[in-house]
Amino acid sequence: MKANYIEDFEEWKREFFFSAPVQVRFSETDMFGHVNNTVPIAYFEFARIEFMKEMGLMQRWLEPGNELFPVVADMQVDFVQQVFFDEKLDVHVKIARIGTSSVDVHYWTVNEKGETCFTGRGAIVQVSKQTNRGYPWTKEEIEMLQSQQLAVAKK
Amino acid sequence: MKANYIEDFEEWKREFFFSAPVQVRFSETDMFGHVNNTVPIAYFEFARIEFMKEMGLMQRWLEPGNELFPVVADMQVDFVQQVFFDEKLDVHVKIARIGTSSVDVHYWTVNEKGETCFTGRGAIVQVSKQTNRGYPWTKEEIEMLQSQQLAVAKK
Amino acid sequence: MKANYIEDFEEWKREFFFSAPVQVRFSETDMFGHVNNTVPIAYFEFARIEFMKEMGLMQRWLEPGNELFPVVADMQVDFVQQVFFDEKLDVHVKIARIGTSSVDVHYWTVNEKGETCFTGRGAIVQVSKQTNRGYPWTKEEIEMLQSQQLAVAKK
Amino acid sequence: MKANYIEDFEEWKREFFFSAPVQVRFSETDMFGHVNNTVPIAYFEFARIEFMKEMGLMQRWLEPGNELFPVVADMQVDFVQQVFFDEKLDVHVKIARIGTSSVDVHYWTVNEKGETCFTGRGAIVQVSKQTNRGYPWTKEEIEMLQSQQLAVAKK
Repeated sequence: MKANYIEDFEEWKREFFFSAPVQVRFSETDMFGHVNNTVPIAYFEFARIEFMKEMGLMQRWLEPGNELFPVVADMQVDFVQQVFFDEKLDVHVKIARIGTSSVDVHYWTVNEKGETCFTGRGAIVQVSKQTNRGYPWTKEEIEMLQSQQLAVAKK
Repeated sequence: MKANYIEDFEEWKREFFFSAPVQVRFSETDMFGHVNNTVPIAYFEFARIEFMKEMGLMQRWLEPGNELFPVVADMQVDFVQQVFFDEKLDVHVKIARIGTSSVDVHYWTVNEKGETCFTGRGAIVQVSKQTNRGYPWTKEEIEMLQSQQLAVAKK
Repeated sequence: MKANYIEDFEEWKREFFFSAPVQVRFSETDMFGHVNNTVPIAYFEFARIEFMKEMGLMQRWLEPGNELFPVVADMQVDFVQQVFFDEKLDVHVKIARIGTSSVDVHYWTVNEKGETCFTGRGAIVQVSKQTNRGYPWTKEEIEMLQSQQLAVAKK
Repeated sequence: MKANYIEDFEEWKREFFFSAPVQVRFSETDMFGHVNNTVPIAYFEFARIEFMKEMGLMQRWLEPGNELFPVVADMQVDFVQQVFFDEKLDVHVKIARIGTSSVDVHYWTVNEKGETCFTGRGAIVQVSKQTNRGYPWTKEEIEMLQSQQLAVAKK
């Protein structure tokens, strides 16, 4: 694991408190017989939004008339191991860093054997429809973004 | 060609006056080595919208604040011949029938050898966002929908 | 329900013995705010393959060196009701008719309220890689294809 | 442009000698009204393969019985500017670095106004089906990979 967003891989893995399941669809394979490289980013989006729902943020963005929405600023995917039709994956997601109006989200996908298939990261920015620029998190939203870690720490 | 929407195949083919080009992407193949069966419907959508733009209808639906939008009511795809990576296809589109608030659109996809790969049809309904029901075409819109045939007939 | 493959809708629904769950991904919506019309056919494929696995047929086709594979001959989708981001759907699948080397598969998708969202049908043909033509089912395979109905009938 | 793979943006842009056109499909938008973040990686794949065809490499990988194939090792996408339905994009591709059995490919996508929409990079590794490991480029292949730059330099 030499991705530039991972310092200590064992420690990095221990910091994930949330995951969403994904099953590889036949239509997601390509003629080389494995999952096409364009697909994991869709798995990441699915898991990230499940996480945003869990924290209560996605609901806010989807409220009718809401003026703020999340935008993917950048995305990195590391294809550690080939994945094939019908594999059942677990896509782990965590908030690695909270900025003024953005978050750095990390992704760790494992197969049923617990082997790492994909890792990744990407910044999400909360943007205002009016200004088309980043819109700062409120104190409450920052607490939402920290809620997973706190929930686990309390256990 | 025994599709229930084609009576006389030679005549049916002669009635197409518009087509849009599509090149098969690698990500559109699957592990059986050919184009996955979920893909042609996206080719049909692309070609249909190119056609709707040509007739001037798509622009109306996309105007900000517009209250009408097109909905696909049903779709049929016949996979006549397997298609493979990198093939260059021509997706023909025609209006087969104009209803009160709908149109029946037919599709005919050929490869570079002129062989039929996919045929299809589907109804598009113009729906009002307020009532969520079909909204009748204006006289002007019916003329737009007939414009391709007329343009060719005049030649 | 006026689809040409449904005679009596209530009876048609009662004949489904298998279903697979699907959750609408954000990336499957389009700028009209609902699930794009190209997506349900991928849900159908997912559910059909889950069904083929349940019956033991998919495993045969995926065996290394196997010379037979399933091909989608045609597909019909009826979009009965708009579907939106995050809805949890149940995609029912049944074998409606068994041919010499093909099956006619029907699809019925419902949302969490039990409302019908999509219906559909399509023929799957078992094709030989050598001849590129339909390859007849064995007696054992026909029994596999009938197994769901029989399993339920025995209850 | 603060992507970690771009030192001097003006110079970086000048080094692109190849591009492939892409037109945004309706089915590639999402309910936020713009191109979904999972889509540009498919544009990159399309343009990269067009480039690999231009250099003569893709043909080798697709030859029947060929034991080598290209694998995407990692991918970075920077979403510089939102892109909308029907935009016509130009996806530039270049080989930024040639390794023993890999290449580092860079991507620069511009809209019709010449504005930068997406930038990206990713390593492609030539893998052997037998060993499942990187397989070194031959001298001839390295020349193929350098051909674009040389062709332009000669002008």
